[in-house]
Amino acid sequence: MKISANQTKNSLFQKIEQVRHRQGKVRDSHITLAHGSGGKAMRDLIDDIFVSNFDNPILSQLEDQASLNLASLMQQGDRLALTTDSYVVDPLFFPSSDIGELAINGTVNDLAVSGAKPLYLTCSVILEEGLPVETLRRVAASMKKAALKAGIKIVTGDTKVVHRGAADKLFINTAGVGVIPKEVNISAHNIQPGDLVIINGELGNHGAAILIARGELALETNIESDCQPLHDLVETILKVCPDIHAMRDATRGGLATVLNEFALSSQVGIRINEESIPVREEVKGVCEILGLDPLYLANEGKLVVVVGQENAENVLSAMKSHPSGKNACIIGEVIPSPPGIVLLKTAFNAERIVDMLVGEQLPRIC
Amino acid sequence: MKISANQTKNSLFQKIEQVRHRQGKVRDSHITLAHGSGGKAMRDLIDDIFVSNFDNPILSQLEDQASLNLASLMQQGDRLALTTDSYVVDPLFFPSSDIGELAINGTVNDLAVSGAKPLYLTCSVILEEGLPVETLRRVAASMKKAALKAGIKIVTGDTKVVHRGAADKLFINTAGVGVIPKEVNISAHNIQPGDLVIINGELGNHGAAILIARGELALETNIESDCQPLHDLVETILKVCPDIHAMRDATRGGLATVLNEFALSSQVGIRINEESIPVREEVKGVCEILGLDPLYLANEGKLVVVVGQENAENVLSAMKSHPSGKNACIIGEVIPSPPGIVLLKTAFNAERIVDMLVGEQLPRIC
Repeated sequence: MKISANQTKNSLFQKIEQVRHRQGKVRDSHITLAHGSGGKAMRDLIDDIFVSNFDNPILSQLEDQASLNLASLMQQGDRLALTTDSYVVDPLFFPSSDIGELAINGTVNDLAVSGAKPLYLTCSVILEEGLPVETLRRVAASMKKAALKAGIKIVTGDTKVVHRGAADKLFINTAGVGVIPKEVNISAHNIQPGDLVIINGELGNHGAAILIARGELALETNIESDCQPLHDLVETILKVCPDIHAMRDATRGGLATVLNEFALSSQVGIRINEESIPVREEVKGVCEILGLDPLYLANEGKLVVVVGQENAENVLSAMKSHPSGKNACIIGEVIPSPPGIVLLKTAFNAERIVDMLVGEQLPRIC
Repeated sequence: MKISANQTKNSLFQKIEQVRHRQGKVRDSHITLAHGSGGKAMRDLIDDIFVSNFDNPILSQLEDQASLNLASLMQQGDRLALTTDSYVVDPLFFPSSDIGELAINGTVNDLAVSGAKPLYLTCSVILEEGLPVETLRRVAASMKKAALKAGIKIVTGDTKVVHRGAADKLFINTAGVGVIPKEVNISAHNIQPGDLVIINGELGNHGAAILIARGELALETNIESDCQPLHDLVETILKVCPDIHAMRDATRGGLATVLNEFALSSQVGIRINEESIPVREEVKGVCEILGLDPLYLANEGKLVVVVGQENAENVLSAMKSHPSGKNACIIGEVIPSPPGIVLLKTAFNAERIVDMLVGEQLPRIC
């Protein structure tokens, strides 16, 4: 790289020509530490894999931050929603989905459940040295597809590479920004006795699909992850009823965790009916074999909606009219007491407490 | 957890009393997979370590997203700045700083260099099973302190735990939101021939400090990381001159990388003078021993400012008046040709090309 003082100007200009022939392409087959250096290899990786896939004018500026017009955000509502999630799912690819789609939909859904229109995402990856570049390409292509479907733009990002063994293949963080419309006020603190609890379909498919995909069980099933964006279903719901009290997607920790969070935040009781909770037979089977409870199994496209009794039928039929809600059903009700507690009415007409998950059912599920 | 149908109501209520005695405290000495479960252990960890340290009314809502008033954002400017970085620095603690402070200042600085006032952060952690809880407490306390200093609020977050060996101790992602004042228009694309390049102080301290902290060299020095927030220095600069052309903090890849990015984005040449670039003698020594170039060494508190010649003296004296800029100096100038190329005028009056970093000098520097 160094040119000593006695070299001619001519050789300096030759060097300049060489430097200018930057490819903007990754030529390595595997990720190396150089891809996280901040230098040329990293820039090529970003150009070739991220900028080309996530193609939009804000990202392609390659500034260290995206700049978003506030006036146009304000036209869409009065509050900014901001959220973040890191995705460490293992394996990276699983039936019907992968970590890339998950990293988009998971954050889109955390925005959507506030009633926000999801607008912008950041994308930060931590790569293990030795990861096949082709794997990263597949994941980025999947993110591109999911972002298009969700109508969200990836506008800024970061790339880090760690030594072999210092991370497992690939972790993705996405942070999301959306705008909440004026009339919407959804919060886990708004729940009142008498409200009804609605869910948009079968529980536990994502958790069961990951479990099967790990290949530790000698089971063959056709269970697929339910990974999907929920923003459009939420929009459909808000059109018929802006007055949704609480809404959350039941991911890690499952339905049980969301309901416990609701009960604690609003200091109400929630009673659900075992018989009305939809779970696929195959998922029940997997749970029975492994001693798991579908109430705690992860989902990646399941919406839990709490709404006043007077609006429940309206919301339910709007949900059923949407492809992501066609199996929607009412699964329980909010009761004044015991506050902070979720009760399950079993098929045998007994009641048991559905506590927050103690211990861990299934690590690296998302 | 299960209560069979023939148990009395009485025992159900006893159970309720037990469930209610949630501590909101972490009692384990080390991180377990349960701390990433979405369940009770995770909630206790979040309450005890994150919510208590980052204490603010938005975060303590514990919704899946923070909700920020758009009208009050608009009072501060016309554009939202959005940025993200993952921090994987090794070791977690190093002379005068740590990964927690770095995760705040790094993202604060990526906002600040756009001219934005940094306002809100997200915080997402990936923890390795077995990490001492005390380590996480130290890091969170450090984040709290840095966030206070930078005047920024951590308003939402995420916690994931992976198996022992699937990550190295602790990774942090922060995404940041700030607001850019109306009159400010800073971009790597705005640079013009004749502009001058100013830096706020000595190069390479962070990179050298990390290198020494790894203990692989039998060197004893008093080199400390320069990790610091730059928002206040930037504000001081913008007060005397809103018309800054380009500004970036020289982190991973060092000064050389930032200047190459500038030269490429604006299609100009940049010529810097080796003799005017401030580098501590100890850092020069470390570089000589290891064959490193201080131009590529990482910093975490160094601002590169490109400004029209007519404003340079003004900006320089404003920088010198600020504690984070007292060693500020002009290090080079922008030239029309060769476009996209950075040249270094050496002490011997020769010229060499300062290319983008090829390969990797020092992995996991930030």
